[in-house]
Amino acid sequence: MPAATPDPATPFDPDEPVFAMHRGGKLAVHSTVPLATREDLSMAYTPGVARVCDAIAADESLVYSYTWVGSTVAVVTDGSAVLGLGNIGPRAAMPVMEGKAVLFKQFGNVDAVPICLDTQDPDEIVAAVKAIAPSFGGINLEDISAPRCFDIERRLVDALDIPVFHDDQHGTAIVVLAALRNAAAVLERKLGDLKVVISGAGAAGVAVTKMLVAGGVEGAETVICDSRGALHTGRTDLNPAKLELAELTNGRRLAGGIADALRGADVFIGLSGGTVPESAVAGMRPGGVVFGLANPNPEVHPDVAHRYAAVVATGRSDFPNQINNVLAFPGVFRGALDSGATRITEGMKLAAATAIADTVADGLTRDAIVPSALDTRVAAAVAAAVADAARREGVCRGSFL
Amino acid sequence: MPAATPDPATPFDPDEPVFAMHRGGKLAVHSTVPLATREDLSMAYTPGVARVCDAIAADESLVYSYTWVGSTVAVVTDGSAVLGLGNIGPRAAMPVMEGKAVLFKQFGNVDAVPICLDTQDPDEIVAAVKAIAPSFGGINLEDISAPRCFDIERRLVDALDIPVFHDDQHGTAIVVLAALRNAAAVLERKLGDLKVVISGAGAAGVAVTKMLVAGGVEGAETVICDSRGALHTGRTDLNPAKLELAELTNGRRLAGGIADALRGADVFIGLSGGTVPESAVAGMRPGGVVFGLANPNPEVHPDVAHRYAAVVATGRSDFPNQINNVLAFPGVFRGALDSGATRITEGMKLAAATAIADTVADGLTRDAIVPSALDTRVAAAVAAAVADAARREGVCRGSFL
Repeated sequence: MPAATPDPATPFDPDEPVFAMHRGGKLAVHSTVPLATREDLSMAYTPGVARVCDAIAADESLVYSYTWVGSTVAVVTDGSAVLGLGNIGPRAAMPVMEGKAVLFKQFGNVDAVPICLDTQDPDEIVAAVKAIAPSFGGINLEDISAPRCFDIERRLVDALDIPVFHDDQHGTAIVVLAALRNAAAVLERKLGDLKVVISGAGAAGVAVTKMLVAGGVEGAETVICDSRGALHTGRTDLNPAKLELAELTNGRRLAGGIADALRGADVFIGLSGGTVPESAVAGMRPGGVVFGLANPNPEVHPDVAHRYAAVVATGRSDFPNQINNVLAFPGVFRGALDSGATRITEGMKLAAATAIADTVADGLTRDAIVPSALDTRVAAAVAAAVADAARREGVCRGSFL
Repeated sequence: MPAATPDPATPFDPDEPVFAMHRGGKLAVHSTVPLATREDLSMAYTPGVARVCDAIAADESLVYSYTWVGSTVAVVTDGSAVLGLGNIGPRAAMPVMEGKAVLFKQFGNVDAVPICLDTQDPDEIVAAVKAIAPSFGGINLEDISAPRCFDIERRLVDALDIPVFHDDQHGTAIVVLAALRNAAAVLERKLGDLKVVISGAGAAGVAVTKMLVAGGVEGAETVICDSRGALHTGRTDLNPAKLELAELTNGRRLAGGIADALRGADVFIGLSGGTVPESAVAGMRPGGVVFGLANPNPEVHPDVAHRYAAVVATGRSDFPNQINNVLAFPGVFRGALDSGATRITEGMKLAAATAIADTVADGLTRDAIVPSALDTRVAAAVAAAVADAARREGVCRGSFL
């Protein structure tokens, strides 16, 4: 494990480097206009500001150009599914949301504001986000547990005319599709020929499955496993999101556990946080792909995975092929804001995945199927691709056309 | 009128200097931690950040020290009473809220985030602010119309353990008390001997009246006028807030209009936005005080006021004695955040008024009863006084004691 991995058993020590770094938080607001003289004050505030208010009152679309709304995103959580820590509540979630905001700024030049909600009731979450929506150019939902997250996102997408994007779902899905596309390329396989097994049918599992199928993976040849085994339409214990997945996948209605599913499979994608025994991985078709994305402990340790697979990826920064959402979300929102997109479409997400995959270009090897999380070219490429897709699909506000 | 005063009749012109200044908004977020290396990323984000989350989950008060919550304030409006523009809605209100946030940063080093709500229903406003409250160290309510603002503020104060402060009420009240105290001093009069008439029984009128009485003005000798004349307990058309004012003031149950109220009065305070005829001002006792605080058009123009009064103040920057809330709110919140205050008490507001008044010190003249709005010493003095008062009154969170 990397040196900085926390040990929850250690008591709080303010001198520990990670606490010293977080002291006072990781974000601040600053003014982008001068405010030194009485004249500045009368322009930025009363009486001059009234002129801008009047203009927006007459044409509300001007809010995107003449306030910071056009460059802001709210990073909204209810603290119900934070990292691998689970339901730790809104206050304990704040350091993660701040970190997310820092990444938004660093890679996408997006002004992100963490909003940690003091409710875990879906109706109240939807009402609160709708209420604050005029303050932001987009809503990034974060670390909200499944299956609540699906309904919350759908209701907000329907209600709002700004992009709403649950990053645990779609950010992960975009990067996994990019990685799998490049893995297939380096192995000289076609996406549509790969038998894919996904472990985990939560927020990420649902979105990754849909995105892979939209990106060219054969749904009927894909199998999703939850904690009770393979999803198939014969199961009577599935929530609506899982039932939809079962209908999209597993054409042969395979039943059984992860070992049964993996027998002869080309690709394993771990999105569960559980552990897959080596004996199950050994049943895969040789020369395939293993993505163990649980953090900090992948479902299959890379050392084990390499015994059976040709391309191995994790969510960790200390192994090659880090599948990290930061490759997607800053560019996705930058592109959406730049184009005045009112929603994030399937086409925009596919364009983002393609842009991430293409950034690797000539550098593509088995150990470099995705760009580095610190590669600043990625967000710019993603933003351009997403904005193009938004314009092509006609989801942009009039003033941005 | 000052050169920058907007003319609503002029059409929107992007080349106008005030629009050029507002292009892209007036605020941005930035990171306060380095994020250049993989090591930085593993401290600011996963896996290191989990250590901080765990600590806050175990002791929620750490959120104030190890996230930006301890230095942030939400500037919340529903856009129902913006400047003199009225009910222009949340989007058109944003330039003002951004301006407020800029002032918070400039003078109080407070990280303020504008939150413009897409509802004007008091229940929904209360619910939304309660929901987002864990994200902020304080709530500055702004430009919410009376009498709705009183109930909304009271309910939020009761519900939340962070300071809630409606600036149109209390910010104005603090600065008016400071100004009147210095006006009395320069005139060698006692606050308790002054007959005060206030025009306007909205958000500012209610709070100013209460604050002046708490600060030493004689309630029974004070008369408040709304658009129908003097408030007295015999009137049957008063809302609860006005009835409370009537009970606090006008001991002689004077009826009639503003001219009747002003006859023989020492002080006029205009908080109404209306106009007071010169004949009414002429009825005041000579050598008194006129504050015409409506913007941009004072209830009594300073040139007129000076014919009858010795001390004249307005809300405008182009005349002496500008009564500007910026003298109060940055320091009030800075002091509250620094002390871990869970609410803003009457004592904290009185301490703020005293600190503002005392900043003038030896510079006190009839034309300098308040410090300049740009005087950076004010917020620091207010913050120290407010924090002291909070500690004295025992309203601070344990970890700040």
